This record gives sequence, structure tokens and C-alpha cells, in this order.
Amino acid sequence: MKVALIGFGTVGTNFARVLHEKRRLLKDRYGFECEIVAVSDLLRGSVHDPKGLDIPELLGLVKETNKIEGYKGGTKGLDSIRTIREVDADVVVEVAWTNLETGEPGLTHIKEALRAGRHVITSNKGPIALAYPELKRLADENGVQLRFECTVMSGTPTIMLGIDGLAGHVVNGFRGILNGTTNYILTNMEKGGAYADILKEAQRLGYAEVEPSADVEGWDAVGKTVILANSIMGTELRPGDVEREGITKIAPGDIEAAKRQGKRIKLIAQAWRDGSRVKAKVAPELVELSDPLASVSGTTNALTFETDGLGAVTIIGKGAGGVETGHGILTDLLAIHRSM
Amino acid sequence: MKVALIGFGTVGTNFARVLHEKRRLLKDRYGFECEIVAVSDLLRGSVHDPKGLDIPELLGLVKETNKIEGYKGGTKGLDSIRTIREVDADVVVEVAWTNLETGEPGLTHIKEALRAGRHVITSNKGPIALAYPELKRLADENGVQLRFECTVMSGTPTIMLGIDGLAGHVVNGFRGILNGTTNYILTNMEKGGAYADILKEAQRLGYAEVEPSADVEGWDAVGKTVILANSIMGTELRPGDVEREGITKIAPGDIEAAKRQGKRIKLIAQAWRDGSRVKAKVAPELVELSDPLASVSGTTNALTFETDGLGAVTIIGKGAGGVETGHGILTDLLAIHRSM
Repeated sequence: MKVALIGFGTVGTNFARVLHEKRRLLKDRYGFECEIVAVSDLLRGSVHDPKGLDIPELLGLVKETNKIEGYKGGTKGLDSIRTIREVDADVVVEVAWTNLETGEPGLTHIKEALRAGRHVITSNKGPIALAYPELKRLADENGVQLRFECTVMSGTPTIMLGIDGLAGHVVNGFRGILNGTTNYILTNMEKGGAYADILKEAQRLGYAEVEPSADVEGWDAVGKTVILANSIMGTELRPGDVEREGITKIAPGDIEAAKRQGKRIKLIAQAWRDGSRVKAKVAPELVELSDPLASVSGTTNALTFETDGLGAVTIIGKGAGGVETGHGILTDLLAIHRSM
Repeated sequence: MKVALIGFGTVGTNFARVLHEKRRLLKDRYGFECEIVAVSDLLRGSVHDPKGLDIPELLGLVKETNKIEGYKGGTKGLDSIRTIREVDADVVVEVAWTNLETGEPGLTHIKEALRAGRHVITSNKGPIALAYPELKRLADENGVQLRFECTVMSGTPTIMLGIDGLAGHVVNGFRGILNGTTNYILTNMEKGGAYADILKEAQRLGYAEVEPSADVEGWDAVGKTVILANSIMGTELRPGDVEREGITKIAPGDIEAAKRQGKRIKLIAQAWRDGSRVKAKVAPELVELSDPLASVSGTTNALTFETDGLGAVTIIGKGAGGVETGHGILTDLLAIHRSM
């Protein structure tokens, strides 16, 4: 299998490292052999070799020079669009940066790749949250797969659970903790501490961005909610359709009041059927301690699907991380391999 | 797709009902069309029609006469082996009764079906616990699939999570609550009550067998542990290799002592790597309340995989039930459909 990698930041480099380190295991266990034939990154440069690139050399160059232009051999300088169009690849892995407002440049990358008849794997929430129905139709028309496991709960196989694991069920709704930053803040507020101090600590640890509003105002969870609703419940929501309330107004007194009721406050992302429509909401909620979501602490994520055949099915796992996401891309790649 | 159904008890009838009720949804969503062309059950009789059997008629006959011999049309009287060998079916669904000591008659049914080049789906723990490595080789040699989602946690997609969802990971171990009866008893002992009384109540509710030793002595969980270890961790354990201790010796004082330590007693099924070997154990354990397994109450089941790429991944869901298992068989059938 030949892969073109669009984006060589945290996710791209981790995916390449995992693929390289597990080369032997993948061949022995699945008969799977894969070459990265092109890497194109706006900041770090671009290199293409139809025989396959040397991953340790690429990773070494990034470490030493923060660029891949010093790569020995190969063709340099193809931009992402030309890489997608011109490089002979079975799969385009799109892991450029995320923009939740326009979806670009990922949206264009994904459309170009699908139109060129290439399978697409992405960890990029923007394009999938904004345009899943359109992208899925484009993939179907071109007879290729569009996989996006890592857009929700990083490599934890949430999408595969919802689509394949619960195949044949009607998913009537879901409730989840889909943002690690806010769950970290809420967990630490329970231990005593004010929102602002814990946010500062989370920023120091790298769990929260310097500009934290995408997390604390609920936008990140809204994107994931739309992705789950559209891909698993078969609807066509837009981010603006989701009711949204962040955690910035939660005071220590609210946390204490919840404790006194034997409950916990969690930022819950959810969707449910209302007649023929699907509605969705991201907001803080009082959760009973008997609910599996109540015991999910720190940066861990969790999701409960409500199904007609099995009732509630819950998955709990990591919600972020470079290594985790790198593995998730590999899981998607192996799913494509199984179907070929 | 043509299915031959071996066994028409709780699982078989529920699968047939689900398949019938969801005919339209399955066609619309997956383009999936399926006929049950034969049913063979030792007690209820056997009927075969290459054009497909009328499911409501079969279910009505079972309800009224507890037999299917009164079916209008079709060929009667083929036993299970002849049904497997002679009926033109893509998939054999083996849902006859479970025997954890010999695996029979399921083991013979499955071997015959694989040798005849038919995909096999089973909910039967015996054959998979006793002979998975051999059956998997037989399936591979014949170019067909062997699927057994419902042997662990009924229709909750535990096996698919471990094999496909965590593809590319090394699963270093797992810990789970895999038996609903014992978890129901332990949960109710926490509310105050003696083992014997709660067992009696569980028997009255149908959660425990009249002869409860398969559950309370841990044998059922041992079978599931072997299935998970062999299919997901790539080892070849036998049930006798698993250390086993049931819950019959747990006294109210033990439950109280656990509470005082801020813990809970759960019957934990687990496997772990010890050098190049895999070891496994089923025994009561003190579980920290922060562990997702601690909050799993009543007949619910749960399983945590330990992976190299994602750390812990936990799934929580129903562990038993006719409708749940019927849906699980359908999920396996749709997985075969996707690969065809």
C-alpha cells in the first residue's frame, strides 16, 4: 500500500514513527506492507519518492532542522494539491491543521483526494464536522473509503464502534465526555480549586491552549458531536445547530452543590432523536455517580451509545495524544487493507 | 446472502426475528438482503427451502407447537450435519447449546461448516474456548470467516473492538467483568444480604441457573477469558490453564471490609503477558472505585484492554439476553457482508 502524507506535524510524524516501528508486526500479523511515498507539509517542506521514503531519515531531519528539505534523493517541492493529484498513492492521510470555521485547507485536500480516486484517512475535525455528508457522497461516487477515527477520542475506536460494531442497530442517541481539557478542569475543581487557577495549570501542562476558548466554550465538543451524529445517526447537522454552553461559568459552589446531591458536573456532548429529527447539545450536566460517565476523570474521554438492540454501550479511552492518534491512523489504514 | 441456522432456541429465534423486523433497514442502509434457507434444531425439528423460509410462520409455529415440523412447504427432516453439508448456504449460524467440557455438538457443526467452505457465526462458547486456534486455521485454509462476537458480552462488540478496533496495537492484557450472574450477586451483597439469599433471588429472576456452578464457580468467565486471550492476544490457552476461584466463599464481612478500604469486590477475569507467555486468571479482586470496572453493577459486563498505543480502552455493555445476542449475530453477518 502506498500512502501520501499531507501534514507532517505531531500526528504525521507520530503516524510515520508507529508505521516504521511496527513494520514487522504488521507484516507478520496482517500481511500488511506499506510505504510512505510522499510527505507534504506547508512549514517543513515536501518530498516524494515512488519507491518509498526512509522514515528514520525524515524523522531525524525534523528533529535536527525542523524541515525535511534536506532529504537525500526524491523529488522536492510538490505542494499538497500537486502531491494529492500527481503522486501515485492508494491512500491520502490528511493530517494538516484543523480549522473548525472553514475546514480549510483540509476540506480541499480531502475533496481533491477523493476525486482522484484515493482512499482518505484524516484526523482533521474541521472538514468532517462541516462537510461529512458531502464528503461521504463523494467517496461513495468514487468507490473509495473516507475514514476519520481520530477526529473523536483520538485513536480510541469510537467511530468504528458506532458504524461497524453496532451495525444493524438503530442508534437512538449518545452522551459523552469528548473534550479532555474541560474534563481535566472539572475533575480538578472537585478536588478544590478555582476555574482560573486550574486553567492556568492545564495550560502549563500543555492540556489547554493559550487561547482556550475552543475547549472551554465547548466548540471542540460541538465539532465532535456533529461528526458522531452525522456519521452514526445518519443526519445532516451543522455546528450551528448544536446548543452550546461551556464551563467558564461554573463556580466552586456549583461543584459543591453537585457533590451534596451525590452527583458530578461533567461537560456532556449529546444527541437524541426528536421525531424524525436529530437534536444535539453540549452543556454542563449533573451526572449520577452510577452513570459510567461520572467516573471518567482527567483527560480521559468516554461515550455511551443508546441502541435499540443492546441498550447502552459505553467506550472509555484516551481522547488526545500524538502517539494515540498515530496509532488511530494506522487502525484506519488496516481497515482499508482488510477491505482490499 | 443465504443462511443455514443450526439451533432454534432463544438465540436462533431472536436472530430470526431481528433479521425479519429489520429487513427494510438492512436493505436501505447496507444493500443487505438475506434469506434463512434452513433451520435445524434437535428438539424443534428441521426445515429447508432454497427459496428462503417464512420467518413469521416459523416463529408462530414455535410459539404454538414448540416445533417447526408443521411448516407449510420445504423439505423436512434434515439433521444438523446434513443441513450443513447439503444445503446451499453462504453462512452457517451455529447457535445450538453450549457444552464447555467437550464443545459438542457445536464443535463438529463448526468444523463441518468450515470444511464445506461456509462462513461460520456462533454464539457458542464451548467450541471457541476449546478449539479456537484449530478452528481459525481451518477457516483460513478454507478461505472463510469464523465470527463469534456473541461468545463474550453477548452482542456488545467486544471481539470486534479487540481485533479490528485495536488493529495495529499490541494488546498486553485485559481485565473484565464477564459474568453477569456473579456481578448481580456481588452488587446485591453490597446492598446488604447473604450470598445464598441473593442467589435464590437471582434464580427466581432467571439471572442464575438452577445448577449455578458454571457461573458462581467461575467456569463461564474462564471460557470467555480463554476466547479473548486466544483470539486477541494470539496465544493458545486451554480452560485448564486459567487459575480459577469463584465467589461462593465471599461473606458479607468481606464486602464490608472492601467498603471500608474504599473499594469493591468484583469477579475479575484477566490475562497478562509474562515474558513470551500469556497467563490468565478468574478470581474475586478488590477494585479501586476510580477503576471503570468498579462502577459496573448488576448484570452489566465490562472489559478493559491494555494496549501499547492507547493505554487502557474500556467497553461496557449488556452481557446476556436473547434480543442482544440476536443482534450480535446480525452484526457478525453484516461484517461478513462488508467483506464480500
